[in-house]
Amino acid sequence: MIIRPEQHWFLRLFDWHGSVLSKIIFRLLLNVLMSIIAIISYQWYEQLGIHLTVAPFSLLGIAIAIFLGFRNSASYSRFVEARNLWGTVLIAERTLVRQLRNILPAEHDAHRRIVSYLVAFSWSLKHQLRKTDPTADLRRLLPEERVTEILASSMPTNRILLLAGNEIGQLREAGKLSDITYGLMDNKLDELAHVLGGCERLATTPVPFAYTLILQRTVYLFCTLLPFALVGDLHYMTPFVSVFISYTFLSWDSLAEELEDPFGTAANDLPLNAMCNTIERNLLDMTGQHPLPETLRPDRYFNLT
Amino acid sequence: MIIRPEQHWFLRLFDWHGSVLSKIIFRLLLNVLMSIIAIISYQWYEQLGIHLTVAPFSLLGIAIAIFLGFRNSASYSRFVEARNLWGTVLIAERTLVRQLRNILPAEHDAHRRIVSYLVAFSWSLKHQLRKTDPTADLRRLLPEERVTEILASSMPTNRILLLAGNEIGQLREAGKLSDITYGLMDNKLDELAHVLGGCERLATTPVPFAYTLILQRTVYLFCTLLPFALVGDLHYMTPFVSVFISYTFLSWDSLAEELEDPFGTAANDLPLNAMCNTIERNLLDMTGQHPLPETLRPDRYFNLT
Amino acid sequence: MIIRPEQHWFLRLFDWHGSVLSKIIFRLLLNVLMSIIAIISYQWYEQLGIHLTVAPFSLLGIAIAIFLGFRNSASYSRFVEARNLWGTVLIAERTLVRQLRNILPAEHDAHRRIVSYLVAFSWSLKHQLRKTDPTADLRRLLPEERVTEILASSMPTNRILLLAGNEIGQLREAGKLSDITYGLMDNKLDELAHVLGGCERLATTPVPFAYTLILQRTVYLFCTLLPFALVGDLHYMTPFVSVFISYTFLSWDSLAEELEDPFGTAANDLPLNAMCNTIERNLLDMTGQHPLPETLRPDRYFNLT
Amino acid sequence: MIIRPEQHWFLRLFDWHGSVLSKIIFRLLLNVLMSIIAIISYQWYEQLGIHLTVAPFSLLGIAIAIFLGFRNSASYSRFVEARNLWGTVLIAERTLVRQLRNILPAEHDAHRRIVSYLVAFSWSLKHQLRKTDPTADLRRLLPEERVTEILASSMPTNRILLLAGNEIGQLREAGKLSDITYGLMDNKLDELAHVLGGCERLATTPVPFAYTLILQRTVYLFCTLLPFALVGDLHYMTPFVSVFISYTFLSWDSLAEELEDPFGTAANDLPLNAMCNTIERNLLDMTGQHPLPETLRPDRYFNLT
Amino acid sequence: MIIRPEQHWFLRLFDWHGSVLSKIIFRLLLNVLMSIIAIISYQWYEQLGIHLTVAPFSLLGIAIAIFLGFRNSASYSRFVEARNLWGTVLIAERTLVRQLRNILPAEHDAHRRIVSYLVAFSWSLKHQLRKTDPTADLRRLLPEERVTEILASSMPTNRILLLAGNEIGQLREAGKLSDITYGLMDNKLDELAHVLGGCERLATTPVPFAYTLILQRTVYLFCTLLPFALVGDLHYMTPFVSVFISYTFLSWDSLAEELEDPFGTAANDLPLNAMCNTIERNLLDMTGQHPLPETLRPDRYFNLT
Repeated sequence: MIIRPEQHWFLRLFDWHGSVLSKIIFRLLLNVLMSIIAIISYQWYEQLGIHLTVAPFSLLGIAIAIFLGFRNSASYSRFVEARNLWGTVLIAERTLVRQLRNILPAEHDAHRRIVSYLVAFSWSLKHQLRKTDPTADLRRLLPEERVTEILASSMPTNRILLLAGNEIGQLREAGKLSDITYGLMDNKLDELAHVLGGCERLATTPVPFAYTLILQRTVYLFCTLLPFALVGDLHYMTPFVSVFISYTFLSWDSLAEELEDPFGTAANDLPLNAMCNTIERNLLDMTGQHPLPETLRPDRYFNLT
Repeated sequence: MIIRPEQHWFLRLFDWHGSVLSKIIFRLLLNVLMSIIAIISYQWYEQLGIHLTVAPFSLLGIAIAIFLGFRNSASYSRFVEARNLWGTVLIAERTLVRQLRNILPAEHDAHRRIVSYLVAFSWSLKHQLRKTDPTADLRRLLPEERVTEILASSMPTNRILLLAGNEIGQLREAGKLSDITYGLMDNKLDELAHVLGGCERLATTPVPFAYTLILQRTVYLFCTLLPFALVGDLHYMTPFVSVFISYTFLSWDSLAEELEDPFGTAANDLPLNAMCNTIERNLLDMTGQHPLPETLRPDRYFNLT
Repeated sequence: MIIRPEQHWFLRLFDWHGSVLSKIIFRLLLNVLMSIIAIISYQWYEQLGIHLTVAPFSLLGIAIAIFLGFRNSASYSRFVEARNLWGTVLIAERTLVRQLRNILPAEHDAHRRIVSYLVAFSWSLKHQLRKTDPTADLRRLLPEERVTEILASSMPTNRILLLAGNEIGQLREAGKLSDITYGLMDNKLDELAHVLGGCERLATTPVPFAYTLILQRTVYLFCTLLPFALVGDLHYMTPFVSVFISYTFLSWDSLAEELEDPFGTAANDLPLNAMCNTIERNLLDMTGQHPLPETLRPDRYFNLT
Repeated sequence: MIIRPEQHWFLRLFDWHGSVLSKIIFRLLLNVLMSIIAIISYQWYEQLGIHLTVAPFSLLGIAIAIFLGFRNSASYSRFVEARNLWGTVLIAERTLVRQLRNILPAEHDAHRRIVSYLVAFSWSLKHQLRKTDPTADLRRLLPEERVTEILASSMPTNRILLLAGNEIGQLREAGKLSDITYGLMDNKLDELAHVLGGCERLATTPVPFAYTLILQRTVYLFCTLLPFALVGDLHYMTPFVSVFISYTFLSWDSLAEELEDPFGTAANDLPLNAMCNTIERNLLDMTGQHPLPETLRPDRYFNLT
Repeated sequence: MIIRPEQHWFLRLFDWHGSVLSKIIFRLLLNVLMSIIAIISYQWYEQLGIHLTVAPFSLLGIAIAIFLGFRNSASYSRFVEARNLWGTVLIAERTLVRQLRNILPAEHDAHRRIVSYLVAFSWSLKHQLRKTDPTADLRRLLPEERVTEILASSMPTNRILLLAGNEIGQLREAGKLSDITYGLMDNKLDELAHVLGGCERLATTPVPFAYTLILQRTVYLFCTLLPFALVGDLHYMTPFVSVFISYTFLSWDSLAEELEDPFGTAANDLPLNAMCNTIERNLLDMTGQHPLPETLRPDRYFNLT
């Protein structure tokens, strides 16, 4: 995700990395080409009695804009939900650690073991969502025996939650937690289970494919035919106005597709690495395990993964 | 539901199975026919002093697009709610099994019995929503005696929940669960009851029928009359532009209707079989019952039911 | 509420009962009349230097369509909320009965008494919302003494909840429920109290009256004047296009008003009778009280009340 | 708030009190004036080579309509939230009284004392939101000593909640409520605290002032200039169409502003007096304190405050 | 945030501080410049056969307005969420103090210590969100030892929550709170943890940068080219209409950007200082610590920070 520092509005207009321009540049060039064809062939189809005017394209363009607005709402609400779910990981884990420290202030070993599972949960969830290998992160955080058990399961992130619950269950069986105080912590694990299920849902169920398909077809065809609608009035100015309008429509379509899956590493996706890092720093700070790992920083294109 | 692998945008334009094109092809052909009639009869009604222009159709088309946007929002939010409800089945059942293992780590028999009910709950819910026969799946999962009791009830899925609750209630009566820890698990059954009620609500209460009717009437009539509005300017190009605009409107209307009932087996419906399979795999994995059933995969048209 | 079986799209276009056509037919005929006046008077106001064109009506029509979209969203979200509230009655009551059976499996008399109150709650709520007399339904379900007490109160549905709570409170006082298990059931009564309060809120607080008034005024005036805007271009075709556009606007306005109060018995209102019937059947099934009452079915116009 | 009985649609068109017409009548007259100026000056600016057409105003008008739609959504959602908060007062207080009666059926004195505080809470909240003096209502409901304490605080409504909690806390200390049953009632007081905080939030934080300002400026300027855009085509008809379009825009803007603060006493604000009366009637009925106060009724303009 | 007293609508039109006018004045002047260039160069590009008409700009302008509507919804919902989160601070802290007073009426020292932490939490959160130094406020409220510990942590606000929890945990260990009553208060700390996490989320995750970028580019370019589209019809009137349309679009874009980060000190941001002051006054009033600090008041431009 691009985290821009404050920037003068004029400079922004020439920002390449922040926009989706790189994805649609080919289609914009195609639009220039169609504009040239339109200017050349203009005389010819006027002679056939065809008067291509903006009017039908205006109706179509506005309809498409309305549908693009709907599509972007759907994608953006997925982005927001994904961000909320990851926010809940931090919140629930901080509360669980606070409860441990408030209720069992002296059980430092248990604190550390449970913190390890909680930190491992967030990294494992990140790897699951980005389909990368969690082994290195798990080894860094957990004893070898547990890593083996986790990796042997088909659902490693869920297994980590089960093991964290075991630790808390053992505190209950040892009489250090009553059923009531166990229940308070169990609720936090349940919140994490909701996050896990929610992220899996977003990752496996896209916006219905037909929405993507219908919109892309109509947007692409609209942009391709647009020069023919404009050439009657604009003549040599056709390429400029046509590319401008096409940029507006294509970039909104492209961004909607990018936001639909917010767990990737593109410029507008969530910075899961930085979030896991934040979670780890918070939980270690709360249990006094210093020094904390370094804060992750955006790269030179202001991109944070 | 169609789960598309990454695909070049150009290839997508020719994707037949992913779109709703098969449903509206007849109406698009009707549109071509009307365009031809419009071209032929054009001279005739000009002589009557009638100048059909795009302007009134532009107003109407934009109004219809706004209403289509509203209708699609309504349908899509049903789709999203249905998906969330099924996500909650997985989440609540995983948490319930985790609680069983954390609180009563040694009660392996109870784990298995309760897991059987939970898995049966999801398959039975699927069969109820798709109006198919649950007997085979129930027999696979539960003892014959229970299957008989469940099928004798008018509400079999609800009865499974009652029986699962009985198992947990018996653990409480046997003193293995306190009222507090019983309450934690009872909450999870309550979440499942909310899912059951929510799915039944979506299945029995469609978007008010008049919305469907009014929109379809106006969309169809609009598309049918459109060639007459375009022919004055476009002449021989009328069929192409008319079919393009009609495709945009008809496909959005058609998709809204398909998404409205997300429990079917069409290309844009929820893959309930795959979800039940995921739930079963998760719960068996958590209680160490190997081997797990195979993951369901999309068919050759990328369709997952 | 109309529950349509699957139907060919072509037949739908001629469906009279499903649409709001019967409500707006008079205004559509008025529109035809205005169109004829427009055609006749056309020469006359052209001579006065007045050129009525579609352009200002296009601006106005689109603005009205945007506001109609907003108004329909508001009405539809009331419809959805009403349906969700009634869905919660079923869910909460099923859970409460399940808890009774899981926690106190042997207290059959208490089960039946509480089920009677729960069923009576839903029928009484229906009568309250539709302003009909609940006496017959209450007598069918509850002992005479209780019916008298309930009808003596100014808020009979709320009184039923109080009496159901008394039954559960007596189980607590008799030591059959602990405070914890009492609390689980008290939560369900609280959910029912939220439903009751929510339904009362929807029934007594409409969408602000000015929305209805402003929209109707502008829609009616817009439709009335529309023929004068169209007649310049369309001439003899004016009535057809004018009625078509008016149908679109009037039917959306009319439907928004119908959905705003979803507790009536019109074609697009909620089938409260069928829902009460479903609730009764479910609770009786769960407590083994056979035979269940018959399922309510739609009438010959597919209308379910 | 205006609560209209059923009324024929034709009569509605002439309803003065229900609409916001009284607020915008001056601006509509201004519009008529501008129309006359436009008709008179028309020749003059045509000679300067200026052709004011509807086209740029059409673009601007639709943009403004979209923003008005957004602004109305924001205001209406505040109205709905305010109504929901007041609905929650009724629901939470009814549940709290039901719990008192179910758990402590014999403590009639405590019932009455707590009911007095709950009723006082709703009246005091009303007075706080409308910035009126609560003394008379508090004196009617509570002993003098408590009224003094409440009025001495800077936050009287919050103080009432604290005192109600004291009553319940004393029942706990006296051993009549266990910690569990105390907790059930404490949750209801927490719901009331959420209502109090929510209402204070709505009352002190308006929709950002710039939205109001930008929209009003553009709407007023748009309506003022509109006659000049219409006069070219419409000539003598300019005032009629111009006033019609202006009415649509001005009334939506005006209504958005009225709904933004739903706690006033205007025609579209919430009837807080009637709601407090309903709450009082409900709680007295539940504790058998007869006779109940009279139901408040709308005045002759159907206005309920 | 600007909190305007009631003001005549006519005066509002000249309000400078309340609007975002100061931010866009430069771009509006640029627009005037482009209009003059358009008027001068008009003859020249007409000779090239280029007829710049409003039609393509109308299509583009409406599409941009739809996207601006979407962008403003996204920004405004962040503003509303931020306000709700801060409302929850007040609500949760008031409830926690009420619980302390209701359950432990005699523990005045504990009340004051916990109130100090709760007040410090809100000020510290404000400083964290505005990136200012919390030291002075912390010193004012907490003992030096605790201030040192808090400032030594990388997450001071979260640390305050941990310390507040310690106080409540010690009451539990001292036997003054049961696990049940401890749990009631722990829930309130959990609500505060949700607020903290939610505010951090809003502060660190903007609306995807590409939305800002694409919209600003298209809005700026649209406004820059607009005079050329208008000059054909409007001639000398071009600057006026062009600036008017540009003002509408630029101010909505500018406001969306301002609302996106609601924690700043601009005219449309949340008045965090005033909110912290309100919280402090409420908690001190509830525990009888007089005199209360003064209420913060808006400055002479009605601005409350």
